[in-house]
Amino acid sequence: MNAELAAPDHALPQVNRRVLLRRRPTGVPHPEDFALDEAPLEPLGEGQFRIRNHYLSVDPAQRGWASAGANYSPPVPLGGVMRALAVGQVVESRNADFSVGAYAYGWFGWQLAAVAERRDVLTSFSQPRAPLSAYAGVLGINGMTAELALHRLGRPQKGDVVLVSTAAGAVGSVVGQLARAAGCRVTGLTGSDAKATLCTERFGYHDAANYRAAPMPDLLARLAPDGVDVFFDNVGGEILDHTMRAMRPNGRIVQCGTASVASWSPAPAGPRNEREVLTRRVCWSGFVIFDHAEIFSETLQRLEKHVQAGLSYEEDIRDGIDNAPAALADVFAGRNCGKTLIRVIDPITP
Amino acid sequence: MNAELAAPDHALPQVNRRVLLRRRPTGVPHPEDFALDEAPLEPLGEGQFRIRNHYLSVDPAQRGWASAGANYSPPVPLGGVMRALAVGQVVESRNADFSVGAYAYGWFGWQLAAVAERRDVLTSFSQPRAPLSAYAGVLGINGMTAELALHRLGRPQKGDVVLVSTAAGAVGSVVGQLARAAGCRVTGLTGSDAKATLCTERFGYHDAANYRAAPMPDLLARLAPDGVDVFFDNVGGEILDHTMRAMRPNGRIVQCGTASVASWSPAPAGPRNEREVLTRRVCWSGFVIFDHAEIFSETLQRLEKHVQAGLSYEEDIRDGIDNAPAALADVFAGRNCGKTLIRVIDPITP
Repeated sequence: MNAELAAPDHALPQVNRRVLLRRRPTGVPHPEDFALDEAPLEPLGEGQFRIRNHYLSVDPAQRGWASAGANYSPPVPLGGVMRALAVGQVVESRNADFSVGAYAYGWFGWQLAAVAERRDVLTSFSQPRAPLSAYAGVLGINGMTAELALHRLGRPQKGDVVLVSTAAGAVGSVVGQLARAAGCRVTGLTGSDAKATLCTERFGYHDAANYRAAPMPDLLARLAPDGVDVFFDNVGGEILDHTMRAMRPNGRIVQCGTASVASWSPAPAGPRNEREVLTRRVCWSGFVIFDHAEIFSETLQRLEKHVQAGLSYEEDIRDGIDNAPAALADVFAGRNCGKTLIRVIDPITP
Repeated sequence: MNAELAAPDHALPQVNRRVLLRRRPTGVPHPEDFALDEAPLEPLGEGQFRIRNHYLSVDPAQRGWASAGANYSPPVPLGGVMRALAVGQVVESRNADFSVGAYAYGWFGWQLAAVAERRDVLTSFSQPRAPLSAYAGVLGINGMTAELALHRLGRPQKGDVVLVSTAAGAVGSVVGQLARAAGCRVTGLTGSDAKATLCTERFGYHDAANYRAAPMPDLLARLAPDGVDVFFDNVGGEILDHTMRAMRPNGRIVQCGTASVASWSPAPAGPRNEREVLTRRVCWSGFVIFDHAEIFSETLQRLEKHVQAGLSYEEDIRDGIDNAPAALADVFAGRNCGKTLIRVIDPITP
């Protein structure tokens, strides 16, 4: 880290290696949907600055950004740099608010260097208070999603039963610890026995289960025999169908992702839920972190304190931009553990 | 009304004619699911009082109460008096809080006379401030549902586009007027051209359409070309499916009923909605009026003021307890107009 700080400009590549969206994924993204290329560094316009990316974020939401279907943001254009969050350092600047040497987290894409503007930045900081990679995960949208979606939509009360899907993931691992701190009984579903162990040993869960190990009714009978007050759901599909039917009166379902459903165009069929919403008085809400940009800075400060106080997080860091597409496919297959990041700066030789 | 007040006890029948639940409905209730009988009047126990019913309520929710499936209240026992709300007068009392001559609205069942206790009463009043029938509809759970569900879950803001299904119904007709008063653009779906006209001429709607007259996408393009902020839904099914996909960001869906779906055991399939909830940041909530019993009195007072100030409501009053089962079937077939009530006291000769 110190080496990086001392000589950020040394890290500036002569050409910009990039991951482009070659075609729209059908179902979950496949490495073949992407192409690698190299392009010369573009000159900076007034107000712009150049970010040398250190860590590229790999997120389930990228499936939605790469798709043409209805979403909360316009699709990535075909042939364009794949939209991604990243954390990096300002190495050249024509903007007085983003000085050379400062760090930023934002829409810098799957590439080594980005020409950025103010609107591309989610958070910026002169000195990291945690390892830089954390700013793309537990201190980035994953931790912010956990904190804001849990408290604003989930509204956990002391004694509530909380169930989290993808409980060991970048969001779920933080939800577990925050819900535990709120006095809830916290249970999780995850994709392997090893991750279930991680949940109870490191992420604050009272109990966690591998959803592949038994039918959902059996898992719910074990994890939440008296029903669920808060379901923090990142997957949708059958896990949602069953949990919906185990919700307690006035329960809250926080929909943060729908990773288990392979394709949304057209929407697949599932059991109708309107009667469950009605009779259980469920409040089922959708959460998109980018709606909350105006409070990212204050949320980051709260999360930095949590991390300094020992909040546990797991990172799955892979080296080399060429590995980004495969890493995204791995996320959808559950072949990752914690926040998946691509390190694109040589950690030894700056 | 005055005649009733003067001599309530004269109205006491010698035998109690009742509608019993004979078998559980499959799908929507059918008159054959019920049986009529007569029984002697039971003696009152300590704390009990006898209600001479004047108006029996006919409600879509009765389907749920008659079913064995998951619901928000235990099913009516087979052979028992059909659960129903009713408004009537105390004609005999062993409870000092419910004096002979007072009026009450509560769980008095589809029968001429009920032995009641305090817990059966939703509201009580010494003198009606509106026609007595209103206390079983616009001043009963229908008006209360409209007021509380719209404001607590729908949270209408000035300028919001509100869409109401069963817009001319006992609940919808009040929602239309309250949403209009809140400064919204109010649109409705209803089951006939005549009801659509009623919506715009009497119930505060800016526009309303007969859902049978055109495909839902066309109706939504007309009623809410820029999308829906608040969907007040009493029907579920395809109307919900289409409206879900026309919700604006941060829209609210208030699920007050699911009348369009014939059977819920097992739950029929429909297009999955979790991706819509997520990307549209919808807040989809279920409302059950009986959760709000502690504020019925204050809500009644607000609604009485609305009615005195000219709030419009429609009643479909039918005479004779024998007609109650057919009236319920008519409600599900849309062969009613406004709040359906069964008058079980001779309006001329008390």
